[in-house]
Amino acid sequence: MAENIIINDVGPRDGLQNQARVLTPAQRIQLINSLIAAGMRNIEVGAFVSPKAVPAMAGTDEVVAGLPRGDYEFSTLIPNRRGYDMAMACGVGTVGLVVASSETMNQKNINMSTAQAVDVSRGVLDQSRVDGIRTQVYLATAWECPFEGAIATDQVVQLAVQLFEAGANEVVLADTIGAASPADVKQLLKALDAAVDLRAVSCHFHDTRAMGVANVFAAVESGIRKFDASIGGLGGCPFAPGATGNVATEDVVVMLHQMGFETGVNLRGLVAAADLASELTGNCDGGHSIRWIKRQIEMDRI
Amino acid sequence: MAENIIINDVGPRDGLQNQARVLTPAQRIQLINSLIAAGMRNIEVGAFVSPKAVPAMAGTDEVVAGLPRGDYEFSTLIPNRRGYDMAMACGVGTVGLVVASSETMNQKNINMSTAQAVDVSRGVLDQSRVDGIRTQVYLATAWECPFEGAIATDQVVQLAVQLFEAGANEVVLADTIGAASPADVKQLLKALDAAVDLRAVSCHFHDTRAMGVANVFAAVESGIRKFDASIGGLGGCPFAPGATGNVATEDVVVMLHQMGFETGVNLRGLVAAADLASELTGNCDGGHSIRWIKRQIEMDRI
Repeated sequence: MAENIIINDVGPRDGLQNQARVLTPAQRIQLINSLIAAGMRNIEVGAFVSPKAVPAMAGTDEVVAGLPRGDYEFSTLIPNRRGYDMAMACGVGTVGLVVASSETMNQKNINMSTAQAVDVSRGVLDQSRVDGIRTQVYLATAWECPFEGAIATDQVVQLAVQLFEAGANEVVLADTIGAASPADVKQLLKALDAAVDLRAVSCHFHDTRAMGVANVFAAVESGIRKFDASIGGLGGCPFAPGATGNVATEDVVVMLHQMGFETGVNLRGLVAAADLASELTGNCDGGHSIRWIKRQIEMDRI
Repeated sequence: MAENIIINDVGPRDGLQNQARVLTPAQRIQLINSLIAAGMRNIEVGAFVSPKAVPAMAGTDEVVAGLPRGDYEFSTLIPNRRGYDMAMACGVGTVGLVVASSETMNQKNINMSTAQAVDVSRGVLDQSRVDGIRTQVYLATAWECPFEGAIATDQVVQLAVQLFEAGANEVVLADTIGAASPADVKQLLKALDAAVDLRAVSCHFHDTRAMGVANVFAAVESGIRKFDASIGGLGGCPFAPGATGNVATEDVVVMLHQMGFETGVNLRGLVAAADLASELTGNCDGGHSIRWIKRQIEMDRI
């Protein structure tokens, strides 16, 4: 039997938050439903952040209220306890917290030291355990910070250990600015494997330097079995200069299926979702493999 | 000291042969000179093929005559002994021969069996040894054939062994239709490593399924230290349905430099060459990393 790899589509959050065109909650639900139609079970559906800072994520409560019921893992990003309480009030089952791996990024992004950011997360993690909420903690800029440059491997490993000790169900290594090479990915994951259980670690790559798919490959070889990706390669980070789109879901799925893994999602459905993302945002070219996928569909090969 | 990896830019041949716009020899020389200005020493400058079948390669003799003198390895593709003689008449120092890894591809492409194609190559290789000409034999469709599907690993290994025994200086594994996954790349190279000296093997990847850069990484990990790539991702194969551009030189160089390898080429020069390729062909978007490279140049970081 083929081994599974879980894809968590972050298009409806990471993919949309930086778009010039702000989608309505109804449009965001439409995008999420297209992903579900493609077989996606894990989707980041929104963020409980300041609507002033990130207008594209305003109305995440409406999005959550409009989601279908079923065997899905819908997550929302929360910056702090206040966001957590909002997510709880909506009945979200999984929340994503963020701690940057560099001191400067934490200072610039949330005006806290890394230690303070970990403390804030610890408070939320304590409460989430009581509430039975699943938690994913993003270690942002896990390989390189736009302000500090390369991040020491030990620093990331220690943060991951602290966050698991604090009760995180999952730690997501995020290459927020798309700076890691596959060799960098292997190096960090090798060090991390000696310290934590990699089955609870996932990876989040951007394609800024064209290494997104290569990084997924390197992480798969290192034992990672869960990845963030964004439909059509939608994405970018408003707080990280130079960041472009997330690695495209369809590109990752093409590779993983060819390598013999199962993901539960189908490429026909992903193409439809990528086309919808393009129509809604006016700013989504699709993954690098999308022309090939469309040709296979035309020829009825997939 | 950093280890070297050689990039052989095939844009002026593989990149141009399938373009709607046919460039003049002077324009092709201009593109080659832009690559030289970027530090490129290995360039595939043309092909001695039927100008009726491939109008874009007509006048390769003029291109060769207009090349600068110096420490360069300029190669031309030759389909047969006639092409070899034409290349010799121009004073080319390196020739590229092609044998497809599948029976059907050889039949469709050159109306010969694989054994006959190897015999033709053997004849040319015998003569080239006498003439002191360097030879690269391309094993086309080395992982997958558009007609036959997956190619048996043993078949490729045996062909490579035969071609080295026949005197080939180099064997190039070509993923002509961009079908290989990085796991497929590792599998073939592991088998090949047991049979031949990988220092005489290079790899040629297309980005059709978005795995081009990942495949370069997998090949580097397997010991390959020479790669074909195409400036700006120009390319495609008119005889292989579904093939799109070669992996982009700039994307490969970004990754290799970040992994600590030296290539002798510089990204500023590559961007200028990619922009020229775009201007000349009207059909070159640049590699996936080109926006990031341009931003680094603007900020004077590279």
